[in-house]
Amino acid sequence: MRKVPYRIYLSEEQIPKQWYNIKADMKAQHEPLLNPGTGKPLEEKDLYPIFCETLAHQEMNAADRYMDIPEEIQEYYKIYRPSPLIRAYNLEKALDTPARIYYKFEGNNTSGSHKLNSAVAQAYYAKEQGLTALTTETGAGQWGTALSMACAYFGLDLTVYMVKTSFNQKPYRKSVMQTFGANIIPSPSDTTEAGRAILEKFPETGGSLGCAISEAVETAVKTQGCRYVLGSVLDQVLLHQSVIGLESKTAMEMIDEYPDIVIGCAGGGSNLGGLMSAFMQDKLTGKANPYFIAVEPASCPTLTRGRYAYDFCDTGRITPLAKMYTLGCEFQPSPNHAGGLRYHGMSPTLSKLYHDGYLDEARAVEQTRVFEAAALFARQESILPAPESAHAIRAAVDEALKCKEAGQAKTILFGLTGTGYFDMTAYASFHDGVMNDSIPTDADLEKGFASLPKVPGQEE
Amino acid sequence: MRKVPYRIYLSEEQIPKQWYNIKADMKAQHEPLLNPGTGKPLEEKDLYPIFCETLAHQEMNAADRYMDIPEEIQEYYKIYRPSPLIRAYNLEKALDTPARIYYKFEGNNTSGSHKLNSAVAQAYYAKEQGLTALTTETGAGQWGTALSMACAYFGLDLTVYMVKTSFNQKPYRKSVMQTFGANIIPSPSDTTEAGRAILEKFPETGGSLGCAISEAVETAVKTQGCRYVLGSVLDQVLLHQSVIGLESKTAMEMIDEYPDIVIGCAGGGSNLGGLMSAFMQDKLTGKANPYFIAVEPASCPTLTRGRYAYDFCDTGRITPLAKMYTLGCEFQPSPNHAGGLRYHGMSPTLSKLYHDGYLDEARAVEQTRVFEAAALFARQESILPAPESAHAIRAAVDEALKCKEAGQAKTILFGLTGTGYFDMTAYASFHDGVMNDSIPTDADLEKGFASLPKVPGQEE
Repeated sequence: MRKVPYRIYLSEEQIPKQWYNIKADMKAQHEPLLNPGTGKPLEEKDLYPIFCETLAHQEMNAADRYMDIPEEIQEYYKIYRPSPLIRAYNLEKALDTPARIYYKFEGNNTSGSHKLNSAVAQAYYAKEQGLTALTTETGAGQWGTALSMACAYFGLDLTVYMVKTSFNQKPYRKSVMQTFGANIIPSPSDTTEAGRAILEKFPETGGSLGCAISEAVETAVKTQGCRYVLGSVLDQVLLHQSVIGLESKTAMEMIDEYPDIVIGCAGGGSNLGGLMSAFMQDKLTGKANPYFIAVEPASCPTLTRGRYAYDFCDTGRITPLAKMYTLGCEFQPSPNHAGGLRYHGMSPTLSKLYHDGYLDEARAVEQTRVFEAAALFARQESILPAPESAHAIRAAVDEALKCKEAGQAKTILFGLTGTGYFDMTAYASFHDGVMNDSIPTDADLEKGFASLPKVPGQEE
Repeated sequence: MRKVPYRIYLSEEQIPKQWYNIKADMKAQHEPLLNPGTGKPLEEKDLYPIFCETLAHQEMNAADRYMDIPEEIQEYYKIYRPSPLIRAYNLEKALDTPARIYYKFEGNNTSGSHKLNSAVAQAYYAKEQGLTALTTETGAGQWGTALSMACAYFGLDLTVYMVKTSFNQKPYRKSVMQTFGANIIPSPSDTTEAGRAILEKFPETGGSLGCAISEAVETAVKTQGCRYVLGSVLDQVLLHQSVIGLESKTAMEMIDEYPDIVIGCAGGGSNLGGLMSAFMQDKLTGKANPYFIAVEPASCPTLTRGRYAYDFCDTGRITPLAKMYTLGCEFQPSPNHAGGLRYHGMSPTLSKLYHDGYLDEARAVEQTRVFEAAALFARQESILPAPESAHAIRAAVDEALKCKEAGQAKTILFGLTGTGYFDMTAYASFHDGVMNDSIPTDADLEKGFASLPKVPGQEE
């Protein structure tokens, strides 16, 4: 008789009622956000023109270890959570590894990813403040879809700036967001000053998350009753995404397991930050010592080849400055299909944890090897993974193969952030053998670093 | 405190270990399949050139009430089952109805539908018999995807004839099936005699399930080590799909519920047959009296406007004859977006139950009203339904509104068979207001009925 089932579901009562704030357990905080004009640290109220007030408060709050999840958000979570923790028996068998592989599957909702966890929270707080509209950017389209769903639910207008490359690669993403009532604009666009400026400088660009952020922020601050929301990078997002890690830890406790290795793909950091949250708490407080791996695309190697420096969060240089690993706000990633990982920067909290050695390893992987892992996983586990998620699969497979070589039965946990139903253009190019790895040269990186802003005390 | 959670999941141990064979409890069986050449009833071994032997046996077996699910199939079921039974709290609230609405959601697997339940079984038995290849047809693409996954898992070659309309409307469905290694051919094609004949007669046709079946059967019988498999209509498929109803009944028992009304969309009958199985047993044996509703598209009104007669299962007139509700094997449905419901016939078992009054009601609904219900459901329940499934949603909403008017707190159960990620062309045409209802005229129907074969004793 098998001890551990394929799928471990918590009960509705076991869905977390509080988020966990990792900053409360960090011995040192990341450097503060800076006003790009004055170079001075921002205070909570400085964020009010961009973010709604509760979210601005969450962004700055390092004091409260746990924060109550409002009743309305808990109700929405119950529609699609808990997400299953799945034992990858078939993948283990195919790899012939002694490792035990688990994945937390966040793709079983219509947005197709974990992004809904934060979208619901951000839409709720906007509604609570009496706002009527939101703007945002989306890369792969998962965040845009998630926010469309949340805005439809809470009755808010939504404008989504979608990275042009993804807009063209994923026409049906647009239709899904429209089904939930959102207005979709390919970015860069001529609807904003930031968009027009970027189009003038790089007329052929397929866009980037950084650029789409500029446009969404500009539109938000210029529109009455409107604020901007972001699906990754920010501390508030990591807070909301902590439900992933909290649920994972509870589920693993139920089967007497604890991960030796925790693996997540990392674009802006929302998934990895959420998945590792409860386990990182154990590491920060000395209770356990899991090994954390952040996996990023070789085409956009923020942690592995970037600099730890103050930078703009957007390409148009209108956001606050954040201290983070970055490739430079004007770095133009090649049109890698993992649209959700094409961001020049990285969550300041994850960056700090990586810089200080708590996030143990960052690993850049080539796109073709990622899709090899995705196809293997799909056939074995019968789930079609999103290209972003497949970065984590690649690393999990490689770790499991190391276990095989060493004869070690490690417990591996990775985040399967989403499904790839809208990524079939990418899968088709992989099947047709026309996919390339698009690894930037050192010269490409230098060009990006040259765009780093001058900040007093900035590391070189 | 809420008594019933949003999502009710059975444990892995509660997944059925036996299928339920509804025929064992039917007082009268449907008429036997006939050899179209001789008009004589077929025996089990007559089916061996088309179906593998165990499936042929299951097709004919009315004696065994329960049949063991082989270990290998049980293992695969554990990868994606149990599927949740969901209480539609938000939909109920939006409708302001006293009805309690539940839906069994079969779309949380990569095939996007319940079709996987039978695909796994059929691929397993083919493998067990030492076959190396299978052929099939697919309409919406859900069955083709499901079978691609199952064939990838068991190492079988697969050729899928995909209804041309769906092939053009859903290019990414093809890529998904290719990811799982299948060969996809738009039907009608010039690869078969049946296809060439239909193309000559109707050069502009978008194809139909009936036509794709002809091509798949022809290729199967002409290829060494190859058999044909079908995702609906057949008794063997209803047997495999009984897991839906068995799980639903167990889940409802856990929350002290029993449906007053059971609603399923009906194309070939696989979903409704599966969903109602365990509840129909109660009706057949006098233990309970739930009210069953089959919902079909007004554009392909098999039960509501068809004839109960012997007909070919395919357009090319090469399959056995089945006694069923049918629009005539040459009925050409208009390109309705619910590709999975565009079939001229209906499961002989469901037809018999409808004819004898056990399946209480058949209801034809217009496409635009179906998408209205789909959009309402998506925004309230945060699941993007397949157009096929949305037929059941439409009827469930209408029943819930009747309850509101009458002040009755009925318990409604419907089957949410799948997700609509690959149906965005249809959603877009709905949003753009260019969708039409394509209801056939009486003259259209007469043209279809004229194609009914001459069979001794055939009702007029």
